[in-house]
Amino acid sequence: MIIEMRQGATRKNIETVVTKAKKLGLDVQLNQGVEKTVIALLGSNTGEIPTETFEVFPGVEKVVRIMKPYKLASWESKQEKTIVQVGDVKIGGKEIIIMAGPCAVESKEQIIACAKKVRDEGGKILRGGAFKPRTSPFSFQGLKEEGLEFLAAAKEKTGLLIVTEVVAPEDIELIAQRADILQIGSRNMHNYRLLEAAGKSKKPVLLKRGFSSTKEEWLTAADYILREGNPNVILCERGIRTFSNATRFTLDIGIVEVIKKDSHLPIIVDPSHAAGYFEYVPGLAKAAIAGGADGLLIEIHPNPQEALSDGPQQLTFSDFSRLMVELKTIAQAVGRII
Amino acid sequence: MIIEMRQGATRKNIETVVTKAKKLGLDVQLNQGVEKTVIALLGSNTGEIPTETFEVFPGVEKVVRIMKPYKLASWESKQEKTIVQVGDVKIGGKEIIIMAGPCAVESKEQIIACAKKVRDEGGKILRGGAFKPRTSPFSFQGLKEEGLEFLAAAKEKTGLLIVTEVVAPEDIELIAQRADILQIGSRNMHNYRLLEAAGKSKKPVLLKRGFSSTKEEWLTAADYILREGNPNVILCERGIRTFSNATRFTLDIGIVEVIKKDSHLPIIVDPSHAAGYFEYVPGLAKAAIAGGADGLLIEIHPNPQEALSDGPQQLTFSDFSRLMVELKTIAQAVGRII
Amino acid sequence: MIIEMRQGATRKNIETVVTKAKKLGLDVQLNQGVEKTVIALLGSNTGEIPTETFEVFPGVEKVVRIMKPYKLASWESKQEKTIVQVGDVKIGGKEIIIMAGPCAVESKEQIIACAKKVRDEGGKILRGGAFKPRTSPFSFQGLKEEGLEFLAAAKEKTGLLIVTEVVAPEDIELIAQRADILQIGSRNMHNYRLLEAAGKSKKPVLLKRGFSSTKEEWLTAADYILREGNPNVILCERGIRTFSNATRFTLDIGIVEVIKKDSHLPIIVDPSHAAGYFEYVPGLAKAAIAGGADGLLIEIHPNPQEALSDGPQQLTFSDFSRLMVELKTIAQAVGRII
Amino acid sequence: MIIEMRQGATRKNIETVVTKAKKLGLDVQLNQGVEKTVIALLGSNTGEIPTETFEVFPGVEKVVRIMKPYKLASWESKQEKTIVQVGDVKIGGKEIIIMAGPCAVESKEQIIACAKKVRDEGGKILRGGAFKPRTSPFSFQGLKEEGLEFLAAAKEKTGLLIVTEVVAPEDIELIAQRADILQIGSRNMHNYRLLEAAGKSKKPVLLKRGFSSTKEEWLTAADYILREGNPNVILCERGIRTFSNATRFTLDIGIVEVIKKDSHLPIIVDPSHAAGYFEYVPGLAKAAIAGGADGLLIEIHPNPQEALSDGPQQLTFSDFSRLMVELKTIAQAVGRII
Repeated sequence: MIIEMRQGATRKNIETVVTKAKKLGLDVQLNQGVEKTVIALLGSNTGEIPTETFEVFPGVEKVVRIMKPYKLASWESKQEKTIVQVGDVKIGGKEIIIMAGPCAVESKEQIIACAKKVRDEGGKILRGGAFKPRTSPFSFQGLKEEGLEFLAAAKEKTGLLIVTEVVAPEDIELIAQRADILQIGSRNMHNYRLLEAAGKSKKPVLLKRGFSSTKEEWLTAADYILREGNPNVILCERGIRTFSNATRFTLDIGIVEVIKKDSHLPIIVDPSHAAGYFEYVPGLAKAAIAGGADGLLIEIHPNPQEALSDGPQQLTFSDFSRLMVELKTIAQAVGRII
Repeated sequence: MIIEMRQGATRKNIETVVTKAKKLGLDVQLNQGVEKTVIALLGSNTGEIPTETFEVFPGVEKVVRIMKPYKLASWESKQEKTIVQVGDVKIGGKEIIIMAGPCAVESKEQIIACAKKVRDEGGKILRGGAFKPRTSPFSFQGLKEEGLEFLAAAKEKTGLLIVTEVVAPEDIELIAQRADILQIGSRNMHNYRLLEAAGKSKKPVLLKRGFSSTKEEWLTAADYILREGNPNVILCERGIRTFSNATRFTLDIGIVEVIKKDSHLPIIVDPSHAAGYFEYVPGLAKAAIAGGADGLLIEIHPNPQEALSDGPQQLTFSDFSRLMVELKTIAQAVGRII
Repeated sequence: MIIEMRQGATRKNIETVVTKAKKLGLDVQLNQGVEKTVIALLGSNTGEIPTETFEVFPGVEKVVRIMKPYKLASWESKQEKTIVQVGDVKIGGKEIIIMAGPCAVESKEQIIACAKKVRDEGGKILRGGAFKPRTSPFSFQGLKEEGLEFLAAAKEKTGLLIVTEVVAPEDIELIAQRADILQIGSRNMHNYRLLEAAGKSKKPVLLKRGFSSTKEEWLTAADYILREGNPNVILCERGIRTFSNATRFTLDIGIVEVIKKDSHLPIIVDPSHAAGYFEYVPGLAKAAIAGGADGLLIEIHPNPQEALSDGPQQLTFSDFSRLMVELKTIAQAVGRII
Repeated sequence: MIIEMRQGATRKNIETVVTKAKKLGLDVQLNQGVEKTVIALLGSNTGEIPTETFEVFPGVEKVVRIMKPYKLASWESKQEKTIVQVGDVKIGGKEIIIMAGPCAVESKEQIIACAKKVRDEGGKILRGGAFKPRTSPFSFQGLKEEGLEFLAAAKEKTGLLIVTEVVAPEDIELIAQRADILQIGSRNMHNYRLLEAAGKSKKPVLLKRGFSSTKEEWLTAADYILREGNPNVILCERGIRTFSNATRFTLDIGIVEVIKKDSHLPIIVDPSHAAGYFEYVPGLAKAAIAGGADGLLIEIHPNPQEALSDGPQQLTFSDFSRLMVELKTIAQAVGRII
């Protein structure tokens, strides 16, 4: 941690900071420049000390953290890339894993039709929402328990693994009986109770980035899960909120490589929520594969015009088939496989 | 709802849309321009129909909602301004209500000292976090139940009302025994289970704006609470996430008047979280009062340098006293009182 | 243009709007719903009428534009995709065009070395700044006229075409003698005098997106050039300003397909300015190709550690060679060539 | 400047950085922690050295600037607050200066009517655009030279000073004959040639913040003007671009106090462009005064419904009168006068 004192900071100001740092067990190095004094605090746990601890003192201009605020998600904590294994499927390895399915489970027929399509095109995991967090209380909220049963039926028919969203700790036990991967959505990335409960469940967790989260906040949210002894966290970029009106959210494609440099966790991309509109999904999906993603989470629907939620962003089966062909060639071009 | 068809949309495209609309019980008016066809859908419940319903059809260029997505929070639903009465205190009336206290309850002495200060300066409500949602799992998470007891003690000593944060539905019963107002923080604005539970509790709820929420999302979150038959919702703007690095969050001061035009609910401002730094708190607090806020939520601490969380943004007691004097004159200048 | 009247708007309010619209030569259709009146204004030039014209009237709630504010850049204006031909090079066709070179021209040797590298790897256009717009007046501002001469020498040696930035109308004549494409940077996207002058020059123009421009503003800026009778505009996405700190700017990869749907102009991507750091450039470059871009603008430098500007985002020659191999396979995978 | 080396950085990596720093004449202090090495570079000119200089070296994790990138605009450069004196008017002193007038000069009658109103209500400076930068080439671009003459006539009639926008260096000579203050708009904040030309003119300059500029970029733009020996720079916050749709731009009210802490230059606020709608202008204007602004730039129009540009955000004369009464009381409440 680096503390920059203001021009004109007094000796006493500096001493107060130094004393506080020593009390916290840190090593202190003073750098007295011509115009300013800069204090370096060294120690193995400075990442856990909030910058606030020092910002509050008189004479302090700026406090800069050198150690990262996240810990367990970082390469400093674990030097080997995490490969999340679910059944036979490995997420984070050479194979790019395609997860697809409808926004919401609407009926047994619908989810089974989707599952067959996903399997036939080379997808490995079926997605489908049974518990839906909706912006408006007047919107369709999901089939809940019945939806889980339909997912289980689709799994039985196709052998696909299941990923589905959890929105509250009290639902985890039930959902964990049916799902292979628990999805935590953007709106819940800061729901720490839910993160802890998902951690305790020991099920693999797909953690979506909050739509206005920084990299640090996202990886620190992953720490909440990892700290419960659950190493199986898959990160998922799904678009961030910006001024840009081109797509519904702005896919932060650059974060894929940034995460890989800073964390051992696998990272996949959800092009559907970023696009908000089916015509823009294939472009984002292809960009994600070429840009380094370990997998994709795509929405498809047998008949988007009749979908109960998020119709416009779901691909038809034929669009999905066409896309999968392209994705496979791109995967090969970047030395991977689908 | 207005549906703009693309140039070159076929008669069949148009008919599909019209048929769907009629199925939903809507009135349809066709506007055939020289280059484009525009379809107006009319009816009392179009605000509840997602724009997606029509975006998905071929030939549709854009769907624009005319009715608002939120309902109960709007003037259309209730023509009288909501005044939330808690004990003797009325939020949303002529009086501007000051709520102040430490970020976190740290000890009985600390919270009582704060409470006395708040009361002596003319504040009406004591804030203080007992259950703290923290970005990092390694940070101080609050005194929890013990914190609630300290708040109760402070209430007894000073007669102030208590506002404190709830982070999970399962805590509400416990917290509601001690608190007069339940605070739902920014990170939980989309936690719909929590919103519903707070609605059911019938306690007044202070609903902070998610730091990347639009006006529509915020008011729709309020609808979740209102729909449970709890009319006592107080909105609180606390800064949004933008590119600007001037303050920790960017206080969206303009939304105060916008909310007043669109909703009957009272709106207050939290200058402390927006500023992130005590020197910038007074400026934002004064701007908020002049800009139309019905109240303020301010962080103060007997000794910010020893605070367990958010030290830099908490005012000292003497800073707070000085600020209150200024706020009172500004309140008067805009025809209100503190 | 659609005008939504407020609930409770009077007959007189409605008439005022209708009268104004008729004065402007527009067709008017009234849609009287149960709760609200919606007025549709139809005509071929409503895209040019500011929404403000009607927002200002009493009783008006919202004005929504149906026709686009840009005109010449849209498919409505021209039904064939624009292919910008410069010498033998066609931008916007099947071939993906690679433009590469240093951030700034620093010496004859440096720019010739870069040019040879670009040519050898299959690039078609050499970039290099001679007139540099720098954030600080104390930074290196470019070699100016001498830089242009070095670019000309590199062109003679390699046969590559030249793209270089113009920052002021008065420099265009001089620069146009040496450059094949005039680049207008992000900071100047709103410099309308410069856009007009570039339009008048009849040289092909590479128009970067302002880093906080919407799609509409960008295409309307293109209209300034097109209106001068210069059809050769190449759009270039280079990252937008958002809260995200993952990369220096956030590459808005999704806008590539959106632009292709809305405009006939070719669009390329600059991964270097978006990344801000060389390690993140290849990922963005690959994503751009897979995501539909017609070309790339990449920064390379024989020795980035000695670069006079933007060192960290420039690729070394060997990094660039490695990247070009990958880009070629990806181009093939999406049915194009480099 | 602080350079954080990566974990595992080699001795050679560190030496390369140290050598480079010494070549640049900097003092170097090595801080070797348990896990990481941190290098502090000290010297009076580190603010002018781009962080890039060191980011490019192998083994470097992060480079943090301690000295500010702007220089002349900072308190380090000048310890006394700048008061810009124009005629009898002092901007930056105890008096809050109101500048008002129409968005665009439309006719002699219009501008004289506005001038009288401004003077009668206690405003000191008349605004009015003669050269208008418009997003679309098809919009009204201003009366240009004739507009300047009308402004001069209004000045003669009322004694008010004149502020008007310059959009290109070649117009400055002409405009400087009529205007007392040159306004540089948001879209031109990065137009360095224009900044330099305005600096050379020695006329006071009102520099609007670019709508996506950071504090550092804004103050560095001011440096371009100051460096030409023109000390009379007035900063103007006018709203930034964010995701928020509450107002047209988001007024960054917090930057007012931040600028005052970091710079000796006066700062005023333009509530009209931030609001985008007249009903929201008074709230922002009042907040700005209470929040510390040294003045306001407000748009008024005798008949906003007939305005040629920005109609909806211009106040009517009676709205303006009412607002001025309120502003005067608020000014008093914060110890200032209008």
